[in-house]
Amino acid sequence: LEPYFEKIMKLQLALDLVDINGAKSILDEINDIIDIVEIGTPFIIKEGVRAIADIKQAYPFLEVLADVKIMDAGDHEARLVYDAGADIVTVLGAAANVTIQNVTKVARDYQKKVMVDMIAVEHIEQRAMQIDKMGVDYICVHTASDVQSQGKNPLEELKHLHAVLQNAKSAVAGGITPEMLQSIIPYQPEIVIVGSAITARQNKRKATIEFKKVMR
Amino acid sequence: LEPYFEKIMKLQLALDLVDINGAKSILDEINDIIDIVEIGTPFIIKEGVRAIADIKQAYPFLEVLADVKIMDAGDHEARLVYDAGADIVTVLGAAANVTIQNVTKVARDYQKKVMVDMIAVEHIEQRAMQIDKMGVDYICVHTASDVQSQGKNPLEELKHLHAVLQNAKSAVAGGITPEMLQSIIPYQPEIVIVGSAITARQNKRKATIEFKKVMR
Repeated sequence: LEPYFEKIMKLQLALDLVDINGAKSILDEINDIIDIVEIGTPFIIKEGVRAIADIKQAYPFLEVLADVKIMDAGDHEARLVYDAGADIVTVLGAAANVTIQNVTKVARDYQKKVMVDMIAVEHIEQRAMQIDKMGVDYICVHTASDVQSQGKNPLEELKHLHAVLQNAKSAVAGGITPEMLQSIIPYQPEIVIVGSAITARQNKRKATIEFKKVMR
Repeated sequence: LEPYFEKIMKLQLALDLVDINGAKSILDEINDIIDIVEIGTPFIIKEGVRAIADIKQAYPFLEVLADVKIMDAGDHEARLVYDAGADIVTVLGAAANVTIQNVTKVARDYQKKVMVDMIAVEHIEQRAMQIDKMGVDYICVHTASDVQSQGKNPLEELKHLHAVLQNAKSAVAGGITPEMLQSIIPYQPEIVIVGSAITARQNKRKATIEFKKVMR
């Protein structure tokens, strides 16, 4: 009847507009009710890999995703962030196949995980089918924040992804609110990624609990 | 007869596999014979924006390019690296138009420059024509290091780019050697980007001078 009740969905908190102290101040409020903490791209640009190391050390029970959006040098860049303590690394769906394959090889070596970010990929089904054969752990549909302001959200892309995935698990990101999550639930993504709908709220714990309530 | 003799081509040194001390040790050898120093993607992942700030402070007469390969949050990420002292920021050709436009707006605000990295873009001519209308400063054809190992180089893509550019200036990157530069010269790119052909050499000054000789 409601098969998704069986499924444990993970909540990933994306930390973008922070430095290390700002990240800790948010995590101190809600580390016990999220599953994965994302060191967002601008956060890594600001602080470098020490952001990954510091957050992993402070919250070792959380999975840490390093959103480096690898586009080249797959082997080297994946090692950099895994060595710093990341559990999951992101590579772009727009990258060359060999780059995604190189990142995946390193992930298997390290017994860690790789997420392919499909941001700005035009033909989601076609590209997801190719990538799904490469042994990646997650494929993430992701509406760019720059594109959200044009009124787009990731639900349509999630439907397309859901229709073709055979091996990888799905993730979804891009301006997700508790209301939007209601429509997302039937497609059972493994990971739901939330950023400003929690981080920009005054009461971050309350905002997180609103998502958790929809997830179960 | 040889119109490119009129043109001043710039040499950009890409620093990828270094930390701040390693970068300075290379730059101390050759800062007087390069034009632009690139803080490469893995260098920024490692050190964050302090890499940009430290290198700009140590060599204020060099242009500093921050190779952050922006894919989203164009406004915020461009400001981050310009505020740290970068003169040029990179955004991906694979990014959404609005992201490239947002980066370009910030570049104009700051009176700084933006380079669009066409890495992994399939239809170079078609995409370059679109991007060329957006008022960006440079469009760079770039063979990914992961793809170079499959025997590819950026010369063919440079020909395609050269054929369509009306406004932006061109740049070229991806495993360039002095020999390859001979074939590149007729297409008169504004910027030639060299990495390991200098940084992996024992005598980096000699290696740099080999490129400079081909450039004039």
